[in-house]
Amino acid sequence: MDYTEKLTRYVANFVDELAKSGVTDVVVSPGSRSTPLALVFTEHPSIKEWIIVDERSAAFFALGLAKKSNRAVAIVCTSGTAAANYYPAIVEAHYSRVPLLVLTADRPHELRHIGAPQTIEQIKMYGDYTKWFHEMAMPEASDKMLHYVRNKASHAKHVAEEGNPGVVHLNFPLREPLTPNFSLDAIWGTKSYTRQNIMQEGTKQLAPNQLQILLEEVGPNKKGLFVCGPQADAEFADAVTSLAGKWGIPVVADPLSQLRTGQHHKDNVIDGYDAFLREAEIRQELKPDYIIRFGAMPVSKSYLFYVMENVETQQYVIEPNEGIRDHSSNQTTFLFADPTTLCQQLEQMTVVDQDVSTAWLKTWQEMNQIAKHYLLEGVEEQITEGEAVRGLAEVIPDGSTLYVGNSMAIRDVDTFYMTSPKTINILANRGANGIDGMVSSGVGASADNERVTLLLGDLSLFHDMNGLFAAKHYKLPITIVLINNNGGGIFSFLPQAKDKRHFEALFGTPMDLSFEQVAKLYEANYNHVKTEEQLKAALYESYQLDGLSIIEVKTDREQNVQWHQAKWQLIKEAILKDG
Amino acid sequence: MDYTEKLTRYVANFVDELAKSGVTDVVVSPGSRSTPLALVFTEHPSIKEWIIVDERSAAFFALGLAKKSNRAVAIVCTSGTAAANYYPAIVEAHYSRVPLLVLTADRPHELRHIGAPQTIEQIKMYGDYTKWFHEMAMPEASDKMLHYVRNKASHAKHVAEEGNPGVVHLNFPLREPLTPNFSLDAIWGTKSYTRQNIMQEGTKQLAPNQLQILLEEVGPNKKGLFVCGPQADAEFADAVTSLAGKWGIPVVADPLSQLRTGQHHKDNVIDGYDAFLREAEIRQELKPDYIIRFGAMPVSKSYLFYVMENVETQQYVIEPNEGIRDHSSNQTTFLFADPTTLCQQLEQMTVVDQDVSTAWLKTWQEMNQIAKHYLLEGVEEQITEGEAVRGLAEVIPDGSTLYVGNSMAIRDVDTFYMTSPKTINILANRGANGIDGMVSSGVGASADNERVTLLLGDLSLFHDMNGLFAAKHYKLPITIVLINNNGGGIFSFLPQAKDKRHFEALFGTPMDLSFEQVAKLYEANYNHVKTEEQLKAALYESYQLDGLSIIEVKTDREQNVQWHQAKWQLIKEAILKDG
Repeated sequence: MDYTEKLTRYVANFVDELAKSGVTDVVVSPGSRSTPLALVFTEHPSIKEWIIVDERSAAFFALGLAKKSNRAVAIVCTSGTAAANYYPAIVEAHYSRVPLLVLTADRPHELRHIGAPQTIEQIKMYGDYTKWFHEMAMPEASDKMLHYVRNKASHAKHVAEEGNPGVVHLNFPLREPLTPNFSLDAIWGTKSYTRQNIMQEGTKQLAPNQLQILLEEVGPNKKGLFVCGPQADAEFADAVTSLAGKWGIPVVADPLSQLRTGQHHKDNVIDGYDAFLREAEIRQELKPDYIIRFGAMPVSKSYLFYVMENVETQQYVIEPNEGIRDHSSNQTTFLFADPTTLCQQLEQMTVVDQDVSTAWLKTWQEMNQIAKHYLLEGVEEQITEGEAVRGLAEVIPDGSTLYVGNSMAIRDVDTFYMTSPKTINILANRGANGIDGMVSSGVGASADNERVTLLLGDLSLFHDMNGLFAAKHYKLPITIVLINNNGGGIFSFLPQAKDKRHFEALFGTPMDLSFEQVAKLYEANYNHVKTEEQLKAALYESYQLDGLSIIEVKTDREQNVQWHQAKWQLIKEAILKDG
Repeated sequence: MDYTEKLTRYVANFVDELAKSGVTDVVVSPGSRSTPLALVFTEHPSIKEWIIVDERSAAFFALGLAKKSNRAVAIVCTSGTAAANYYPAIVEAHYSRVPLLVLTADRPHELRHIGAPQTIEQIKMYGDYTKWFHEMAMPEASDKMLHYVRNKASHAKHVAEEGNPGVVHLNFPLREPLTPNFSLDAIWGTKSYTRQNIMQEGTKQLAPNQLQILLEEVGPNKKGLFVCGPQADAEFADAVTSLAGKWGIPVVADPLSQLRTGQHHKDNVIDGYDAFLREAEIRQELKPDYIIRFGAMPVSKSYLFYVMENVETQQYVIEPNEGIRDHSSNQTTFLFADPTTLCQQLEQMTVVDQDVSTAWLKTWQEMNQIAKHYLLEGVEEQITEGEAVRGLAEVIPDGSTLYVGNSMAIRDVDTFYMTSPKTINILANRGANGIDGMVSSGVGASADNERVTLLLGDLSLFHDMNGLFAAKHYKLPITIVLINNNGGGIFSFLPQAKDKRHFEALFGTPMDLSFEQVAKLYEANYNHVKTEEQLKAALYESYQLDGLSIIEVKTDREQNVQWHQAKWQLIKEAILKDG
């Protein structure tokens, strides 16, 4: 058997096992050493390939697609710095628990550490950010080695998705010649090694006695609080709101909890807390007996203040698999169990007497109503960042996805995106909260055959402008709402803003770029909107069009701070007067 | 002493010691956690700060500036994926031996591994690609800790530059509040700890008996060959050409050896070898007795074939410090000694008799003349990639820098950039040969107060388009010559080009981007040139202008291969007929 046949069968059995394990998409960046992987993936009948030149964008595209689809996405690149460009998305995938299969081509061992071109040390090059690294064997096509390569494929897919999803890195040493031979028979495997392993997964569940102890500490008729942070389980909303209904307690719902939108029961859902918890006096009135948090810590900084001021409150954090995510420094009980199942079990076990006390719930509901009233009232002549979120929430199509940028965008969604019966998948990159890779993440999510609206700031759009290429090239259904405040808007809210001398140069960083030109470059539909009505009209229009639309909302960083602060002031005064 | 004072004194003493150790430039990317470093660097009177939003571009900008200036450049970013964006440039700096000081801000220990926002594991996050990593102590301002912080600053600068230059990574845990207080007295240090360490460096030199043994094996009156690969020492050209003159042997000079341009003696310099060594029959005629190589392996693949066909030839590789860089798999003697000094010592020790044989040298010189004749002859109606290099070489200003992209650009420079008396600093990123970061590398080099001409392809320009921002923002003197063959031109030269089915999608990757639009976006002077004369005129014009110019040369990938092959065919026929 010649080397080309060995290479072809080895790589084809690997790719075929990935496909049989459920991998549907691969993102390939062009290169020479990766030729066998790139060509075999492209040739495989049941895997769709996406070709993206900039590896940084390619990896974030895969991240967005994996996050949206809840399936591991494979990425393939050549040897050298190409692989290093994956690093930001790998770090984000690790912390935000998104399954990625990183497949790097490498020079064979005899070409390493002797100054050969485009050869770098790739063993464990992503350090602590992968769940598993494996240096693949050189291509061989004995039965034993085809079993091996299939085993590694199904294992890699499994590890990427099991428990807390994350990153698996397989490094492929590949010799020349690199072009596979597709005229060989049965390259996708013969009977004896079709489908090497099948892997199924259980979930963690508390034992009856553990549940019993928990129920003695929490439950109805206490000042309990459910807090739902970023999480991806679509079943969870029904389970937690149903339990909250039975217990009569409020549910603080982060925009990324998937609780603010959808068809579940929302009477107990509190969505305006970020605004009214800003005020210390209000936080004082809301001392809870216990907090049960699901998902990661919410985005809201005022919620963090609230928790930290209540050190005596018993806090429970529910983690489906493992991980310690609580930076409040309060005493915390970590319960490692599937959140949806836990809510269902607790509801079944709860015997509720006739008069569950509702005073505590009502206090939250009333404050929430006041906050929402002021947050949503009024129309500015020149559209504000908050109004942009309000308008977007109104017209975004049911069943579509909203991808939210970091820094100001996610905070504005937290404050201004209120509950709605539409089912909107709201996603963001909250593993490491970077402003990098946002365009590609949103565009990647739109590759899952669904309209995506991407809300982000000008620095985020600039940082990953290259991500626009895939939207143009593949005519993907994505609408970008660009909040252009010409620089880093969030810094105006921080103490750094007080030192005026270097502020604009170091933090404000106005770029003075014409995003209309950017839209032209990538052949996007472009609109500059000045009012909320214009924004809604432009959004509506974009949803009728194929491909990429960019809608620009220009705002002023200073005015933005003042407008936000005025809202918060009104809410504080109204609640304190009311109380 | 309050925390702000401790923070201010700690960071200020660190930055001041860097300045006193010779650091002149810092590249800062905006962020909150890095505020103390960013502000203190900006405040320091003798360090120039460059603010670049995209950290990937920022690091390559620093790489270009460090490579051009031969000085370590500091880069500063905030915590999280920001730091991961540095990775590609760090890998390149490691392999191309460029000194970088990577200063990452981090959350303090109490905020790590508990899900705090924008907090990732940053300890040793660049793996094997740094010479030294140190986790800095928390800010304190005792005499002892100010000594400590100054020691770490001078040590870091020293390690980055000593031996083979490379990357030093210092990670700074920083607590809030983050804004330093510049109204304090004597923040740049008082007498007792101004300048902590002064470090000076020797060079490796062979002992007299080692030199004697070497001289018995090599020298004049043998078929010897000097091969000069990529290297940065400006003194080296005189030393090696002087020795070659005395010994009467040819000097194969890579474009990055700094031997093709400058005022040194060039009679023995062979610059057309890449073209004539392509032919096996010609290589057969040039069997050497010994090869002494200085610098890294040359770019030329035909030179690699030549070496590998001469396994019996004794090969010497001179390395100034350490490292094994030879992928020929020939038997090799590695000599670890300063190349310039070694050449000078060998010349002094050589007693040459009257009639040094010159037949061997003449054979090389004649073939070289023939190759150059055909390479440089003729003018195509539509400018070719080779003619673009020829035109560029003609008008590039004496004393300026040419930064060359990877893939096709460096190969065309290798083939078509012939010796010239002008002193041109020719640079490229040949550590890992990536197409990433090229724009920023070139723009960074232009930040050293000298005109840079950057030659690169369309995929390279696209990959680091964000790098154009610094050129626009700082009005840096850079002329970009863009060879736009609408995709990956080099793949058309590789075996992959034979498989037509997926070739365009996976390797050709045409992007169909308008670079005239790109020029508009970044307010660059733009010219599309169709002939070599137009190119020269546009180049000349750009050299009179401030700021960024983009000159686009559009070519066709298929025609490009044919044009190159026709040249090589003519050269082969002429030499073989002649011989």
